[in-house]
Amino acid sequence: MALIVQKYGGTSVGSVDRIRNVAKRVAKTHDQGNDVVIILSAMAGVTDSLIKLAHEASPRPNKRELDVLLSTGEQTTVALLSMILRDMGYSATSLLGFQADIRTDAQSCSARIISIGGDRIQDLIRERHIVVVAGFQGHDERGNITTLGRGGSDTSAVAIAAAIHADTCEIYTDVDGIYTTDPNICHKARKMDRISYDEMLEMSSLGAKVLQIRSVEFAKKYNVPVHVRSSFNEEEGTMVVNEDDAMERLVVSGVTCNKDQARITLKKVPDQPGISAKIFTPLADAKIQVDMIIQNTRTGGETDLTFTVSKADFREATEISKKVAEQIGATEVLTADNIAKVSVVGVGMKNHSGVAATMFSALAKENINIRLISTSEIRISCMIEEKYAELAVRVLHSAFNLDKEPC
Amino acid sequence: MALIVQKYGGTSVGSVDRIRNVAKRVAKTHDQGNDVVIILSAMAGVTDSLIKLAHEASPRPNKRELDVLLSTGEQTTVALLSMILRDMGYSATSLLGFQADIRTDAQSCSARIISIGGDRIQDLIRERHIVVVAGFQGHDERGNITTLGRGGSDTSAVAIAAAIHADTCEIYTDVDGIYTTDPNICHKARKMDRISYDEMLEMSSLGAKVLQIRSVEFAKKYNVPVHVRSSFNEEEGTMVVNEDDAMERLVVSGVTCNKDQARITLKKVPDQPGISAKIFTPLADAKIQVDMIIQNTRTGGETDLTFTVSKADFREATEISKKVAEQIGATEVLTADNIAKVSVVGVGMKNHSGVAATMFSALAKENINIRLISTSEIRISCMIEEKYAELAVRVLHSAFNLDKEPC
Repeated sequence: MALIVQKYGGTSVGSVDRIRNVAKRVAKTHDQGNDVVIILSAMAGVTDSLIKLAHEASPRPNKRELDVLLSTGEQTTVALLSMILRDMGYSATSLLGFQADIRTDAQSCSARIISIGGDRIQDLIRERHIVVVAGFQGHDERGNITTLGRGGSDTSAVAIAAAIHADTCEIYTDVDGIYTTDPNICHKARKMDRISYDEMLEMSSLGAKVLQIRSVEFAKKYNVPVHVRSSFNEEEGTMVVNEDDAMERLVVSGVTCNKDQARITLKKVPDQPGISAKIFTPLADAKIQVDMIIQNTRTGGETDLTFTVSKADFREATEISKKVAEQIGATEVLTADNIAKVSVVGVGMKNHSGVAATMFSALAKENINIRLISTSEIRISCMIEEKYAELAVRVLHSAFNLDKEPC
Repeated sequence: MALIVQKYGGTSVGSVDRIRNVAKRVAKTHDQGNDVVIILSAMAGVTDSLIKLAHEASPRPNKRELDVLLSTGEQTTVALLSMILRDMGYSATSLLGFQADIRTDAQSCSARIISIGGDRIQDLIRERHIVVVAGFQGHDERGNITTLGRGGSDTSAVAIAAAIHADTCEIYTDVDGIYTTDPNICHKARKMDRISYDEMLEMSSLGAKVLQIRSVEFAKKYNVPVHVRSSFNEEEGTMVVNEDDAMERLVVSGVTCNKDQARITLKKVPDQPGISAKIFTPLADAKIQVDMIIQNTRTGGETDLTFTVSKADFREATEISKKVAEQIGATEVLTADNIAKVSVVGVGMKNHSGVAATMFSALAKENINIRLISTSEIRISCMIEEKYAELAVRVLHSAFNLDKEPC
């Protein structure tokens, strides 16, 4: 008997029949004597349809009102699942964001959870209700509806799990778990049994797309064990947990690839204090996310500065950079959007030297030129030409022995 | 400069383009210096689609959850209208039922409004916001979402108008106003300029379908002037107001017809105290609405008792009646569902004799047999064979001089 939070994504609730399958799984968990709290996304495609509808009404929909509109998606699925569970004889009650008191800041469309008043949920659990909470949504201090941004239901689930001290948070999705790399790119990709929060954070941000990164930050902060698994079979998935000894045996846990990258280089930037701020402040003002930043030390008081942005922001970032270059006296702005970032991730690399060497030689052996390198404590990323992306993933997957089951 | 509540029905907000038209009308009213509060229905057809979706999930959808689902309809339209108004440069803010604090009882799917906390609306008005409130929905004491039943947005509008002491409540619909009878049946039907609350109550309940009856009760109770008009043109519609002297000049204001009727007669019911309760209590328990009830006095300690129900309830009501007939010793149960009710309505009839005589002779002249008669202070209804319904409406419309403009 445990307190289990289960979150089902858009594909898992993509039709009434699929919601019926979800209901069976929920019922089974409840029948085993567990208390269950369910968090649902909108039906697959619904959020996109709603955004389209909003754009029919307005070229730039007011964000507060967009949240009012978008929140109907999860409102629909929680009502349907609760109806089905009621028909099956269970006491089920849906709660919307404001009813579950998921308090957020006032940042419409990308709100952050501030607190969760778990009382209503816990009262219902005590009465042995199955509580079905709308993911992705909350309400701000003034009672306005807010949404948490793409993938926000993952964060809802983990945050609720933390607030009610759940034993585990199961994230049901359309994949079996977290893989050593993208199985569509490398057929030797293997499902991992476990991965640490930190590795998952690096994997999420690098494009693994299975979990919203903020949900992993939450899980790490509140030490919530997250079980990523498929809603279409009974297999165990991947546990995302605190780093443990067993994990350290593996130097590299996974290889990721992100093609949504574009590169901008400012040549001969005067090497003065404050110059970086002059470059990145206008980008930040334009809400452009900068990913990698690399500055090469140079002699002669000048330096080259390179950074990457997503392809969507490329044109705007280029324009801004050209203006800044003129102001600060950089000689030239070079750009490229045919690039990709491949990374190896692993908590084990903290205690092992030679990871970088292995990575670089593996790529060199295939004549893949590395344009940029950046590292974190548990990650090494290389920027390469986009056309080599899949090849690079496969050779790195082999080079770090991920093709075989770990011993 | 006035405080104006405008309610737009499903057809008026049936597409994004139509919502854009609504926005123009709203903007114009605001530009004239008025404060405006808008109440919207769901897009035409949406509530039906949601009910269909619910029935895909469950043969008898749990009502609390059905309300959660249904309330998404109005949530969508208020968000879209607010976005469009924002684009046009107006400060517009949508409020859902719980945000506008429309407090109802806990009767899911047919809740009644208990109170409206107009503070949030009035705060926004003071800031010259256009407030766009979701009709049809409220919340109960425990924060559950409730809905007000078919046509409930009319009641939302009138109740809000009463709560914020609006100068007028305009109900925009797809017809020009209230007609002396159904123009589809009688091409000589004329739009009325004014009608009293009491007449409108009789007209609503008899099937005029333009205003939800509860909205008229509210309007009468709080003396809210209601202006029923079309959202597709600029014509004045019909004012629903307190009875005044001018009205009394007309003996009959309108003729209505209701074909959704079925008749059940219990023959030779023992004429004892409490016998009616024995018949109608089981019907009430089954939530069957009984319309007309007629009991003929008879000699010999027995009586015939006839009542009418809607066609949807006919089968169940018949079964219940047969059981009851057996218990109380009535000899026979006669039923018919090929009947219609035609009525003439008018506050003037209070002071005029001869209305019934005129009505009965007009019908007799066409050899239309009257099966049942019932009356209120301002209405006379006759039950006739369904096939004569349209004919009866036309002859009554002529008989009471409604074909001509009133002098």
